[in-house]
Amino acid sequence: MTVHAQPVLAAMPTIDDVRAAARRIGGLARRTPLLESSRLNDKFGARLLFKPEVLQRTGSFKFRGAYNKIASLTEEERARGVVAFSSGNHAQGVAAAAQLFGARAVIVMPADAPAIKADNVRAMGAEIVPYDRYSDDREVVARPYVEKGMALVKPFDDPLIVAGQGTVGLEIAEDAAAMGIRVDAVVTPCGGGGLMAGIATAIKALSPETEMWGAEPEDFDDTRRSLAAGSRVGADPAGTSICDALMSPMPGELTFAINRKLAAGIVAVPETSVAVAMRDAAAHLKLIVEPGGAAGFAALSSGEIELAGRTIAVVLSGGNVDMDLFARLVAAI
Amino acid sequence: MTVHAQPVLAAMPTIDDVRAAARRIGGLARRTPLLESSRLNDKFGARLLFKPEVLQRTGSFKFRGAYNKIASLTEEERARGVVAFSSGNHAQGVAAAAQLFGARAVIVMPADAPAIKADNVRAMGAEIVPYDRYSDDREVVARPYVEKGMALVKPFDDPLIVAGQGTVGLEIAEDAAAMGIRVDAVVTPCGGGGLMAGIATAIKALSPETEMWGAEPEDFDDTRRSLAAGSRVGADPAGTSICDALMSPMPGELTFAINRKLAAGIVAVPETSVAVAMRDAAAHLKLIVEPGGAAGFAALSSGEIELAGRTIAVVLSGGNVDMDLFARLVAAI
Repeated sequence: MTVHAQPVLAAMPTIDDVRAAARRIGGLARRTPLLESSRLNDKFGARLLFKPEVLQRTGSFKFRGAYNKIASLTEEERARGVVAFSSGNHAQGVAAAAQLFGARAVIVMPADAPAIKADNVRAMGAEIVPYDRYSDDREVVARPYVEKGMALVKPFDDPLIVAGQGTVGLEIAEDAAAMGIRVDAVVTPCGGGGLMAGIATAIKALSPETEMWGAEPEDFDDTRRSLAAGSRVGADPAGTSICDALMSPMPGELTFAINRKLAAGIVAVPETSVAVAMRDAAAHLKLIVEPGGAAGFAALSSGEIELAGRTIAVVLSGGNVDMDLFARLVAAI
Repeated sequence: MTVHAQPVLAAMPTIDDVRAAARRIGGLARRTPLLESSRLNDKFGARLLFKPEVLQRTGSFKFRGAYNKIASLTEEERARGVVAFSSGNHAQGVAAAAQLFGARAVIVMPADAPAIKADNVRAMGAEIVPYDRYSDDREVVARPYVEKGMALVKPFDDPLIVAGQGTVGLEIAEDAAAMGIRVDAVVTPCGGGGLMAGIATAIKALSPETEMWGAEPEDFDDTRRSLAAGSRVGADPAGTSICDALMSPMPGELTFAINRKLAAGIVAVPETSVAVAMRDAAAHLKLIVEPGGAAGFAALSSGEIELAGRTIAVVLSGGNVDMDLFARLVAAI
């Protein structure tokens, strides 16, 4: 019997994989609504439909992909536990999903991750292994756990993770259709690209003319640079950002392949726009959005995405921000 | 033909009136979800189901009653316009409902109401007539407009307003039943008592054993004092509060009659508890709640409501707070 080597690039997930993920997470992930504010519509001259994943279980979209991945492991695999490396939101998603299965979870997390994210991970019974974001390689830190037989739940570069995050796009498409609305564009924050790739997979299958936009912090624009270069390149290694959730150093192999094919473009947003977006979401939608979660909304102020008279779905991907930072950012404007 | 004088006390609304209101506002008011946080459940040792009316159209529950009232006017009455006096949230509810009917709206509003509330009222095309909260009688300021034939949309003491706000309680009862959950108590902020009376009307009809609790600011506890006295008395005239939405000087005649009959009690909450509740809602539910909107949640820390092992529905009634005040309150803890 011949064993074929696994292809370098994992198979791209399809809309069927996203639908399968939706069935797995059904009743466990919250089906977040589409929210609208006439004040924000007036401000931007567009109809804006906000997808508030800040209201998702664990405060970000990450539970969707993590649960889809862990549910797809065998019982034997789950019994050996799971390990993940994450800036915080994926950590919480993995911890929550593992807890539902009664599986052990080890999270390799930057030592400077927001306290709220680390607290929440511990509260869900997961173990935290801290590392230095600037000097350690998180994949190396996670390796001994993988070698002990624990399943690695990658933050984005896995077709099951991408398909899980894609349920955000499936819900947007279904809910817009139920409201009789045609969505001209979807804008989402982009870190490693899993959420964007998943949404694009769903949206482009169900509504091919809808544009798919991503948003990255100005100083962490690895996917934007990669799209321009035509191949994966990293962000400026000296770059830093208030958007801790979007500080992935390089697009994923799979996620870049998908986003390269499906994206209309990536907007690099300055931190001042992120703070204004956070304040607008707080004042008019009554939502706490973390900096990285507000990047897609911030991209509307760039002038790069056509707004006038159009309907734009804006993903607010997470809300796990320390209150002191939140207060400082929204009060400073 | 004999014209009978109207009875002093308007008829108490029933569950049928609440159901009729639910039909009128259906598709226009948002059916807000019940949100839950395992962290907050752990903190309070109870299962907490939050009803986030901050996500309601206009950022508070007030649209429900205002729309129910204005929809119940005749077309001729609506053509003459409506007038309302309000600390801000009722103003926005009335402005939004009048706008949907294309009716003129005049709002008599305290000059020191939060800027966000006045801005929103103006953005919905209503006219603002400012008055001094401490020296003017708002009913006197509104009178000339009523004498010109405009319909007065009272903030709480009207059976149609009470029935409209009661849809909050109807939704809690229906959604809890759909989830197979028995709610042991409902806690809501209490200003003039319309929201509390409406919720009590619905909850006590559908789930008679559920306790109905209200919460007032420590220095604006007119309903608590009135329940203790057995008749309507005012709050301390020198009282002031960060809970601008709850600074009604005296319970309504109708609302007091209902709350006296149906309430388990009223908790007077200190402002420090309100700020902690606002921070908890922000950190764990990702919601912006205004001080008055957080009073019911704050009441859980009083020790007056039994929590251990029980299921408590907590109404977060509004989120219209100026961002600078919000930032100051949640950062100060």
